[in-house]
Amino acid sequence: MAATVFSRIIAGELPCAKVYEDDLVFAFMDAGQVNPGHVIIASKAPVETLMDADEATARAMMVAAWRIARAVREAFAPAGMTILQANRAAGWQTVPHLHLHVLPRHAGDGVDLTWPRKEPGLEKLKELAAKIRL
Amino acid sequence: MAATVFSRIIAGELPCAKVYEDDLVFAFMDAGQVNPGHVIIASKAPVETLMDADEATARAMMVAAWRIARAVREAFAPAGMTILQANRAAGWQTVPHLHLHVLPRHAGDGVDLTWPRKEPGLEKLKELAAKIRL
Repeated sequence: MAATVFSRIIAGELPCAKVYEDDLVFAFMDAGQVNPGHVIIASKAPVETLMDADEATARAMMVAAWRIARAVREAFAPAGMTILQANRAAGWQTVPHLHLHVLPRHAGDGVDLTWPRKEPGLEKLKELAAKIRL
Repeated sequence: MAATVFSRIIAGELPCAKVYEDDLVFAFMDAGQVNPGHVIIASKAPVETLMDADEATARAMMVAAWRIARAVREAFAPAGMTILQANRAAGWQTVPHLHLHVLPRHAGDGVDLTWPRKEPGLEKLKELAAKIRL
């Protein structure tokens, strides 16, 4: 995988405000703070998406998110918290290196979501579920 | 915690199109499909937010999300994938029971995000990071 701004931060080639590091993940303040306390957790593994990661990395990403979300809540007392993990451009990913946002939230903070839900009904939902082979 | 539509689904009191279940999580098709293949993963523990969960539940949520995202990619071949986990109304939570969305994405699917980033600079980022006590 080509170097990204995140792999260069992890390698120490670019500066950051580091929050946490373990064998599998590296966390730092997002340079583009949507709200104060906004943290990015990136995988150390050079993979592009969650689906490309191994199970240990997926697990480490969420354990770090859980720990950091609790600490961000303590530090900034937000009204809410949004965890966002975006994959590929169509999924809102901007840096092609696996990462997750821990974003403290406040009423009227200007972070808005359009969420066009449709209700296909139970039989159609069961048809869709049957396609998902775990 | 009061019963929610999700706790009633997990208890079998409401129907759903089930996708996956283990000791800690229960996954089913979102009745409000934003795109076909949209799955909700809920905790079996009756907690409201990620921050209220224990570490084992956080870990199980993401391992399930990783597995299901891979299977949804196989089944629906989306252009992208968005993992969203919302906490409290200010963080976009609508059902007060810990859950996570696995949402396959497509260009122009009408799911839109306003993400007002600000760049405070490295010194301010370090001040913010210093407030987060892990």
